Amino acid sequence: MNGAQSLTKTLVNCGVEVCFANPGTSEMHFVAALDSAPGLRAVLCLFEGVVTGAADGYGRIAGKPAATLLHLGPGLANGLANLHNARRAATPIVNVVGDHATHHARYDAPLASDVAGFARPVSSWVHSSTSARNVAADTARAVQAARAAPGGIATLILPADTAWEPAFHPAQPLADIGPAPVAADVVEQIAARVSNGKKTALLLRGKALLGEGLEAAGRIQARTGARLLCDTFAPQTELGAGRVPIERIPYFAEQIVEFLQGLDQLILVGSNPPVSFFAYPGKPSWCTPETCEIVPLAHPHEDGAGALRALADAVGAPPQPAARVPLRLPELPTGALSPRSIGQIIAALTPDDAIFAEEANTSGRPLALSLATGRPYTHLALTGGSIGQSLPVAVGAAIAAPGRKVICPYGDGSAAYTLQALWTIVRENLDVTTVIYANRSYAILNIELQRVGAEGAGPKALSMLDLHNPEMNWVRIAEGMGMEASRATTAEEFAAQYASAMQGRGPRLIEAMI
Amino acid sequence: MNGAQSLTKTLVNCGVEVCFANPGTSEMHFVAALDSAPGLRAVLCLFEGVVTGAADGYGRIAGKPAATLLHLGPGLANGLANLHNARRAATPIVNVVGDHATHHARYDAPLASDVAGFARPVSSWVHSSTSARNVAADTARAVQAARAAPGGIATLILPADTAWEPAFHPAQPLADIGPAPVAADVVEQIAARVSNGKKTALLLRGKALLGEGLEAAGRIQARTGARLLCDTFAPQTELGAGRVPIERIPYFAEQIVEFLQGLDQLILVGSNPPVSFFAYPGKPSWCTPETCEIVPLAHPHEDGAGALRALADAVGAPPQPAARVPLRLPELPTGALSPRSIGQIIAALTPDDAIFAEEANTSGRPLALSLATGRPYTHLALTGGSIGQSLPVAVGAAIAAPGRKVICPYGDGSAAYTLQALWTIVRENLDVTTVIYANRSYAILNIELQRVGAEGAGPKALSMLDLHNPEMNWVRIAEGMGMEASRATTAEEFAAQYASAMQGRGPRLIEAMI
Repeated sequence: MNGAQSLTKTLVNCGVEVCFANPGTSEMHFVAALDSAPGLRAVLCLFEGVVTGAADGYGRIAGKPAATLLHLGPGLANGLANLHNARRAATPIVNVVGDHATHHARYDAPLASDVAGFARPVSSWVHSSTSARNVAADTARAVQAARAAPGGIATLILPADTAWEPAFHPAQPLADIGPAPVAADVVEQIAARVSNGKKTALLLRGKALLGEGLEAAGRIQARTGARLLCDTFAPQTELGAGRVPIERIPYFAEQIVEFLQGLDQLILVGSNPPVSFFAYPGKPSWCTPETCEIVPLAHPHEDGAGALRALADAVGAPPQPAARVPLRLPELPTGALSPRSIGQIIAALTPDDAIFAEEANTSGRPLALSLATGRPYTHLALTGGSIGQSLPVAVGAAIAAPGRKVICPYGDGSAAYTLQALWTIVRENLDVTTVIYANRSYAILNIELQRVGAEGAGPKALSMLDLHNPEMNWVRIAEGMGMEASRATTAEEFAAQYASAMQGRGPRLIEAMI
Repeated sequence: MNGAQSLTKTLVNCGVEVCFANPGTSEMHFVAALDSAPGLRAVLCLFEGVVTGAADGYGRIAGKPAATLLHLGPGLANGLANLHNARRAATPIVNVVGDHATHHARYDAPLASDVAGFARPVSSWVHSSTSARNVAADTARAVQAARAAPGGIATLILPADTAWEPAFHPAQPLADIGPAPVAADVVEQIAARVSNGKKTALLLRGKALLGEGLEAAGRIQARTGARLLCDTFAPQTELGAGRVPIERIPYFAEQIVEFLQGLDQLILVGSNPPVSFFAYPGKPSWCTPETCEIVPLAHPHEDGAGALRALADAVGAPPQPAARVPLRLPELPTGALSPRSIGQIIAALTPDDAIFAEEANTSGRPLALSLATGRPYTHLALTGGSIGQSLPVAVGAAIAAPGRKVICPYGDGSAAYTLQALWTIVRENLDVTTVIYANRSYAILNIELQRVGAEGAGPKALSMLDLHNPEMNWVRIAEGMGMEASRATTAEEFAAQYASAMQGRGPRLIEAMI
């Protein structure tokens, strides 16, 4: 057994089932070792931002890490933006980054770089193996670090000789560093607080926002009347009919201020206080009322869902939440195609339990409004604000949940960053429907240009936000990547095409001209 | 005047004429300030790897820095791989990276990251401005750092409030830190050495390899018989008819060893000793004969071209080089399309003084052989080995040299990384002809898989190197980006399409089915 085989077998031992890869020469032994680990599925991506975004989508849905396989410093560098998003999502990921052989490093060959330096800003754990005999143990440590609550990015740098030199046997998994329980006295203090009659909100994130956590929050609401909130870009939310209704904090600072107005106390469950996404001249960054007390029930590494259950019992909450979202599907609209009509059609036609990997930006709000009372679905948000996440995340989500429809509503500006994901969707025959909102613009930036009060913007400035020259044709781009695609210019056309995608299975792209 | 305006005006004062941009909200004041600096051309790119690669291509041809405009840490991160290549090319670049306002940093908003951490591995200079009033001076320092010999990457991080707050007047340029002259006694020592009758080679890089430097090297060869060598991936070489012939060091270690066999002394002029690109089990990394003395005439930051002129005089070299490349154009081939016939057609039909931004990898060698006695041209190599450089570099080269044809011979695997460059080529109506070598494979990796001796590679491993499923259609992809494109399956078809591209002007893509 060589080091590479000890890596792949240890990954499988530790429950890693998928490796998203864009390998090069220094990873050839790792590539060869894929065949010695039947439990490890290898998914080729044509660009590393797809690799890391797919690992993010997989990790959010599967609740456990995928591995990536990346080619030295520059390969990792191409994946950093979506690792930034994954870090903000607290997604578990194990990056395997090849490097020059240890004895080659001194020669500063063209591809040599500071791999650990690239990794540090996004990683909770970084290590470079020094010998093939350490690779198995290092891999088990990397998986443990990635799985440590709430989830983190572990980057394991493997010099090429640690792949081809002899190794010992594979390693067994290390104990999980699960979420820390919240102390009983903390729960008691918060129980007293949420029962004190003041205007209270719970701000939920992570597992607190899903399944049993959300149910418990609904019970607390039934007893205390507390508002239930989630971040603008909560990594994962369970929405739609039958779910406990949750209020999403709006995007712009002044909207957040209005949204939180009158609040006396804000209980954090796995989240941080809400702040403005960007700073603006003369506008607040801090959005919570000055008089509002902010108190954590559970920090992000703690068991927020368990704490909510304990809190529900401590306040004597009833067994059922205060409310559940009713199912109210929109009528199919006709006529002009707009973000609103698109949202109505998607809400009307999407089946139960779909996953939305959404990055529609300015068009996202009308979609969310229509989906609010749609069939139950999971929403995956652009957690770190780094554009070009949605299609890669859809790849990973579809692989983690092969039985579920994955919908990818995508702004055309955003979609251009990591469009190579289309190819992997076709290659793996994933059940992903991509909707391109084709407005030929960085539309959000036209809004932001006004909001920041930038003076003197003339034709040169405005041209930086405009994507009309030339117009991208997303049908041709998708077909160039081997994907079936169509263009819709009216609500009727979009409804017919989207209905066909929902009835069928497999890759599909619709360019919605808005 | 605000900080953003002081930035753009100072850039113009310092001779920066082009800004490649992919901005976001935190850069909106910088975008607005573009209109206040008429001397600064703004070029929008849809992905940051295009931004930084374009700045590399521009800097190599223009011999001075372009600016980039990037959106916080993730925007910079997307540009790092091509900055790695630019670092290896010693290309001058000024990165302007927006960041959160200084007062916003404490809130750790979703897009906050360690921007300087991302920048350090590729930058020779990193600084974050602390106040709008410092932006002008910091900008002048950044340009000075980028221009410092041999050329470097200066990354200036500008928090959003340094853009919108009031600033003083723009700054004037700082003195150039030009190449250091080589001491006369070093020239004398090398003069004695190259005249000692031993088998000698000069290994040239940077300006030593261009124009007067190359001419002087040819004169030294005429007097001493020394071989003239350049690195496999020298950033820029002037080749073809009329030029002093130069031997390019081959790619694989064992080829390099054979190539350098028998050499007694190797004189470095702006270069480092040749080493293997990758390490392989049982193969050497160090490729120069044990008995060969390695002596620098000029370090990379020194005036290699001047040192060669002084050396030519010191050895009493004649006024003309030993040889010049003759013009011998291939006949136009017919029949099957192959890397060889493509190379012959390109060599036969490309006009004088074209720029080749080349990343054809396995197909590059037959092209180089045909071009060797073709019309004079400039070759821009994949300096850092990070795939996806060629089209972005073509963008920048075309903007730096609007009167010259730019040819981009590109492997299909490579082309997928930064294909968004096609859009900018159309937008700016650049005279770039892209030739996609469509072999549906990471062909180089199939070679490398054998070479590294990886055992146990089965279907899963081989599928990681194969791009047949699905087949990309580069004509559709290019048309989707607004570019005129065609597919050639025979030599006749390719010759007709390439001839048409050479006779016309503007963006053009040919997918060559090999």
